Amino acid sequence: MIYLDNNATTELLPEVREAVLHAMSFGPANPSSPHTAGEPARRLLADAHEAVASLIGASSEEVFFTSGGTEANNWVLDLILTCQKRHLIVTPVEHESVLRKAEILESQGVVVNNLPVDCNGVVCLEAAKEMINDQVGMVSVQWVNNETGVVQPVKELLSICKERGVLFHTDAAQAVGKIELDVRSIPVDYLTFTGHKIHAPMGIGVLYRRHGASLMPFLRGGMQEMGQRPGSQNLIGIAGLAEAARIRKQRMTNVQEDLAKIRDLFDSLILSSCVGACLNTEASVPRVANTTNVRFTGINGEAFLARLIGAGICCSQGSACTSQIPEPSHTLLAMGLSREEAYQSIRFSFSELNSIPEVRLAAESISAEYNNLKKVFLSIVSTGGIG
Amino acid sequence: MIYLDNNATTELLPEVREAVLHAMSFGPANPSSPHTAGEPARRLLADAHEAVASLIGASSEEVFFTSGGTEANNWVLDLILTCQKRHLIVTPVEHESVLRKAEILESQGVVVNNLPVDCNGVVCLEAAKEMINDQVGMVSVQWVNNETGVVQPVKELLSICKERGVLFHTDAAQAVGKIELDVRSIPVDYLTFTGHKIHAPMGIGVLYRRHGASLMPFLRGGMQEMGQRPGSQNLIGIAGLAEAARIRKQRMTNVQEDLAKIRDLFDSLILSSCVGACLNTEASVPRVANTTNVRFTGINGEAFLARLIGAGICCSQGSACTSQIPEPSHTLLAMGLSREEAYQSIRFSFSELNSIPEVRLAAESISAEYNNLKKVFLSIVSTGGIG
Repeated sequence: MIYLDNNATTELLPEVREAVLHAMSFGPANPSSPHTAGEPARRLLADAHEAVASLIGASSEEVFFTSGGTEANNWVLDLILTCQKRHLIVTPVEHESVLRKAEILESQGVVVNNLPVDCNGVVCLEAAKEMINDQVGMVSVQWVNNETGVVQPVKELLSICKERGVLFHTDAAQAVGKIELDVRSIPVDYLTFTGHKIHAPMGIGVLYRRHGASLMPFLRGGMQEMGQRPGSQNLIGIAGLAEAARIRKQRMTNVQEDLAKIRDLFDSLILSSCVGACLNTEASVPRVANTTNVRFTGINGEAFLARLIGAGICCSQGSACTSQIPEPSHTLLAMGLSREEAYQSIRFSFSELNSIPEVRLAAESISAEYNNLKKVFLSIVSTGGIG
Repeated sequence: MIYLDNNATTELLPEVREAVLHAMSFGPANPSSPHTAGEPARRLLADAHEAVASLIGASSEEVFFTSGGTEANNWVLDLILTCQKRHLIVTPVEHESVLRKAEILESQGVVVNNLPVDCNGVVCLEAAKEMINDQVGMVSVQWVNNETGVVQPVKELLSICKERGVLFHTDAAQAVGKIELDVRSIPVDYLTFTGHKIHAPMGIGVLYRRHGASLMPFLRGGMQEMGQRPGSQNLIGIAGLAEAARIRKQRMTNVQEDLAKIRDLFDSLILSSCVGACLNTEASVPRVANTTNVRFTGINGEAFLARLIGAGICCSQGSACTSQIPEPSHTLLAMGLSREEAYQSIRFSFSELNSIPEVRLAAESISAEYNNLKKVFLSIVSTGGIG
């Protein structure tokens, strides 16, 4: 098995497993308990806030642990209900947790508009300048697309928002730890991300809120997370995420460079060995180093994915969150691809645990499957169908 | 250190640690991924649904994993907004996650009423019969109180609700695994609980929804948990909870019996050695086996708790979720205690990891601290104060 689906989830690093193990050795430690037993949990929690904040250039009281990116996104978008200006702007290429939440907000009386994206899935800044006026309450744009890896012009969008007094949120689930990202130099109001894209466990995420930007609890209850996110904290997940954040901060430049080598090698091997394959994003568009989205023309995309999975290549046609729905990727459709073209497109996403030999092997296997399938497909077409 | 605060959180069982460790060995396994890598996660998730459902007599498609009891309670109560009858009834002795959520619902136009409780904190059934009419949308009553351990008349409340077409939710965080509890014989509409009260990690909880009772997602996003609870599942927490549930189901009777012995011994040791101490609940009222709430009269309650903590006895004055707020317990106040009496009250809660010798030692230490403090207090009173 070769795992090339790291935008769906990543394997835990050995150090992350150790950190979880360590947190499990604390005995009965509730950080909210006033007594000695809670002490190691309180310390871990304080250190974890620090580590996670540090990865994005924030200070520790600006970050709140959530149960993942989905909760964090739901929380931020829910704030529009507390805005005077109940007008939310998103893009059609956001993660489901933004799109579905925006839908429900719309049914609650919020005006929701979509910023147009171009054929690379990048937000059109000209349109953004027109649409984002001072009647808008919040704009929510992902930092990096989960399916193509393209980087959105977050800095430019933020400055449009600041000019017009509009709150700006970025879903940075696929950006944190993958690009240099510092909320001191790009002071977004809200930023959300999740641990399991950077080798921490699933089920732990973060909401960053710029000091001074308004915040209201989404869940109601106890005083955890400075009263903003009640519920006993997922201490072992937090321990894992903190360690993953520390490691990624140290290794950032190396990881980026290694991943770019791997991904670029993969792209060139696939494009040279698979006649009829092309990237769904233009070379000029900035992408994170770990993601590529390839369209394999002239075949049935679903059959192709099934063959790849059968051959032990783990990859996907869209977000794992929706991969059990047999629908083409909404991101690719928004970029102007047809349903057939979207089905023919496969996302490959790498991590620091992938190696060059592994990627070579995968590319060979993929091109063999593709070229075989294309022959079958062509013979069906030339004989006028199966039967 | 002697840990007698198991209603705040419990220590992980060794088997639970093993289960988490096992889940961490799966490699990059997202249960929503369609490929081979997701397979062990999918299997674990299916088995975990089964194990957790089985502990409460449910079937596996009736349970949904959440990030804890707080989220689960928020989710259920939020359903009142989708009811035609926006009238919610709770009690004044609920957990903060119910009380604070009820407050916010009230600000959103929901009518919220409190059922009165008696001096033991038990809901008055006569009042319930009057208040729960067919204009009420939902009633939410805890199964077991977290501070006193008293068991609420859930069966009787449910039958009142059924008669009048009212949805019934019970927060069973302190009941599941502590009393025989089967949703087939007491078919509540919704039941919520959390893992870390039965030796599973913090940050993982469950919403049970009776097949046929209405449900709407609280978070919006992907298709996880049958589309009802989006967000990549906290797989390692789920692994731990499933194992804790399996173990508790096997050991249920033994654990209950052992805990009752320990708690009853503790009560009798304290009451015999601390003249001026009394239980806050009458002996005739059903309590779970692991909890006792003792009032130590004639002393300053906060000073006493500080001394106990200093002496290495971990116990608390209320829910850990609020223990960093210097307020007396809202449960004890609702039972009619004065603020001073509430401060003088300490919750001791046991688990299967406590032993008889440990409890004897704790009782000795507690009575020594109490009798010392009482002398100081009496000398201050008799000399007319410190100054």
